[in-house]
Amino acid sequence: MATALDTAQRARSAALALQAAPTELKNRALRRIHDTIRANKAEILAANRADLEVEAGTLSASLYKRLDLAGPRDSKFEALLQGILDVVELEDPVGKVTLASQLDNGLDLLRVQCPVGVILIIFEARPEVVVQISSLVLKSGNAVVLKGGKEAAASNQALWASIQQALASLSRDGDDVDGNDGGDASGASASKAAIPPDAVQLVSSRDAVTDLLKLDGLIDLVIPRGSASLVKHVRETTRIPVLSHADGICSVYVDRDADARMAADVAVDSKTNYPAACNAAETLLVHADAAASHLPVVGGALLARGVQLRCDAAALAVLREAHPADAAAGRIVPATQADFDTEFLELVMAVAVVCDVDAAIAHINAHGSKHTDAIVTASEACAKRFMANVDAAAVYWNASTRFTDGFRYGFGAEVGVSTNKTHVRGPVGLEGLMIYRYRIYGNGHTVAPYNSGERTYHRAAIPLEQAQVRV
Amino acid sequence: MATALDTAQRARSAALALQAAPTELKNRALRRIHDTIRANKAEILAANRADLEVEAGTLSASLYKRLDLAGPRDSKFEALLQGILDVVELEDPVGKVTLASQLDNGLDLLRVQCPVGVILIIFEARPEVVVQISSLVLKSGNAVVLKGGKEAAASNQALWASIQQALASLSRDGDDVDGNDGGDASGASASKAAIPPDAVQLVSSRDAVTDLLKLDGLIDLVIPRGSASLVKHVRETTRIPVLSHADGICSVYVDRDADARMAADVAVDSKTNYPAACNAAETLLVHADAAASHLPVVGGALLARGVQLRCDAAALAVLREAHPADAAAGRIVPATQADFDTEFLELVMAVAVVCDVDAAIAHINAHGSKHTDAIVTASEACAKRFMANVDAAAVYWNASTRFTDGFRYGFGAEVGVSTNKTHVRGPVGLEGLMIYRYRIYGNGHTVAPYNSGERTYHRAAIPLEQAQVRV
Repeated sequence: MATALDTAQRARSAALALQAAPTELKNRALRRIHDTIRANKAEILAANRADLEVEAGTLSASLYKRLDLAGPRDSKFEALLQGILDVVELEDPVGKVTLASQLDNGLDLLRVQCPVGVILIIFEARPEVVVQISSLVLKSGNAVVLKGGKEAAASNQALWASIQQALASLSRDGDDVDGNDGGDASGASASKAAIPPDAVQLVSSRDAVTDLLKLDGLIDLVIPRGSASLVKHVRETTRIPVLSHADGICSVYVDRDADARMAADVAVDSKTNYPAACNAAETLLVHADAAASHLPVVGGALLARGVQLRCDAAALAVLREAHPADAAAGRIVPATQADFDTEFLELVMAVAVVCDVDAAIAHINAHGSKHTDAIVTASEACAKRFMANVDAAAVYWNASTRFTDGFRYGFGAEVGVSTNKTHVRGPVGLEGLMIYRYRIYGNGHTVAPYNSGERTYHRAAIPLEQAQVRV
Repeated sequence: MATALDTAQRARSAALALQAAPTELKNRALRRIHDTIRANKAEILAANRADLEVEAGTLSASLYKRLDLAGPRDSKFEALLQGILDVVELEDPVGKVTLASQLDNGLDLLRVQCPVGVILIIFEARPEVVVQISSLVLKSGNAVVLKGGKEAAASNQALWASIQQALASLSRDGDDVDGNDGGDASGASASKAAIPPDAVQLVSSRDAVTDLLKLDGLIDLVIPRGSASLVKHVRETTRIPVLSHADGICSVYVDRDADARMAADVAVDSKTNYPAACNAAETLLVHADAAASHLPVVGGALLARGVQLRCDAAALAVLREAHPADAAAGRIVPATQADFDTEFLELVMAVAVVCDVDAAIAHINAHGSKHTDAIVTASEACAKRFMANVDAAAVYWNASTRFTDGFRYGFGAEVGVSTNKTHVRGPVGLEGLMIYRYRIYGNGHTVAPYNSGERTYHRAAIPLEQAQVRV
């Protein structure tokens, strides 16, 4: 079995070889992966059934459902295949010029997007992550080391084997292909017109991950996707940059100037559309002036959907009076302080009355997890204030917190959701897998004459389209 | 003395208060800081002289020069003052819309720049960093905790005291100011129209830093500026994202199609313009076909500037024959393998002959520090190949490695140089202190009807200028 060091070094070599691969080659690889997985459908679903049989009874219903790769009438499997073709359609992010400026006559500065390098993905349950992430990683010119959970070991292995089979077959027909790519502007030599299979590696043991997390010289980015405890463990045990979110403690704030019906709709969707999601709301805040008028409506709508409300004293008084039957049935209860710092992930919501929008902002900045927070209000000034001062990846005005999602945002694909304060934040598409290089195009330019004052910089912006053709 | 936790918490509060401060308020604070430092010039330079006296004899000449805050005829002090006014002129990066898209009728997605939050800067020797960084941090709406070296303790303290004095005086005349800012679109209440002095804090003890580096929940980014050992120590002891470069092992590759004279100019400037800089070149690579023709010219130019050349076997043979007197004088010597992994920071250069541009790329990706590498060639295909495949923050064609600098790039100001693969790379201006939030503007939109298929997304790009007015 390969050591972690060997795995990472092969990934690094693959990343260096793949970083300048032509778009058409990468798309051809993705289509080949699609075709191979489709052709291997029977074996892949058999492997998945084997995983499901091993885990039957030990996993919760929702985890079991996530582990299932086929879905109703194979709809999940078909969606997985379509996902690969969707990535083919995405614009190639490599080589995109994002800044261009003339520094002096004949001396041009360009900022050009390039892959981050080697990405380590640690995930649980969902085996389709193998395919989704591999597609995004190849399209963006990166290499990836995948570590899945043991509950999906056979499924992950079967999907990965298909990817390897596809890349190997692409490599074998490389000679045909190279003839067509001979005029490629990157100057890639014909012998390299293949995707190194080491660009997608799969490891299965926990020890391998422990060792990989130490290789900060070889691995550029870690993305843990799974439970909060997985994410926290990874963050605490590596010096490699981690792209992640741990908790999702999202809030809905109902302002004095909110429409009560709209507030109820937004709160119900945010809480109940998919309570186990990280973008589900856990906390409801209501302006004191709207407590009597709005809280019974919003609370009533939540109670009608089976949500237990854990309330501060002010909210408790209003809701008990408005909904005595629910109170008697234990669906309206006093909140503990810890309830405002808890990601319930079920039909439970903490409720508090706040004196104004600034108090709502302060509450969220103290208790939230910097993921997604929404305000419901008709006041543009309050909405602007909320969106400018709540320190979260996503801040919404009159919309459900559930919109925080790469597909809903129209990013085409999602690597994960980040609550980081650097690199990328919120739903992360291909952009999170990119960094850039600065290029200078000179004519033998040296800094000495500029330092001495003999020459001075003559700066001017270069239109990006004009700069793009030079890359 | 404040604990690290107290310092960080006050910085966090200041950052939250400052994040939406109006541009004019921030610029007024910067001008007040400028005026106060000018007014306190005598005390500040007296403090600096005290530092210089303590350190006389113990510091190297170059460190001593860096510690001096006045410079020849107070030119360094004047440049420091001008630097603050330069930051006033920079565009405010907060609130800039960088992506805007309609998701459906009445449902808009905007990506809006915002400050990262709390920045910890650890620096050595140069006391002007206190002012440069504080200016950039305030302009970008962040808070900063500064930790300077003990060799500049009095200078740092004097500069920081002037900043505190300026912010306190601004806060006192806040009432006048608020009347004018009443119509501010951010909806900021009058009572908050001041810059919290806690936005700029100074700590002096090593223990304080050790404790601060543990506060990854409160501090968002660490920027160590100083020796490679300082940078490595910080990277190894914190989970907070670190923006930095450690080594600067930069290379100049002279291609077969290079003009020998141009190659000599670029190599000499890259190596000798300022050998102690991180963007100075340490390695010279020459195409085998150009070894006999170009290496004597390039090597001769370097030898003439007093550079010792540490050569692989092929380079040694050519150079010894071309420059026998230098060889006899010990200026042309065999290289050890370690020489190709060393940041000399003095007039020493490692020299190797490589078989082609791919070998040059492979050498640099194996031995370089991902900082800056240059190719000298007349071949556009080779230059493109080099710039697409060398994994460094900056890749130059026919230009000196010394151009890697925020001022030369025209960024107006520089936080530092980053060799990170995430967030920001290369010379870092205000952009490295920014992240973004996604905003959604809805009208009570929920995800449920989109999930059920009752509604579908109707996506369309929104022109950025049109979106900008909504923030």
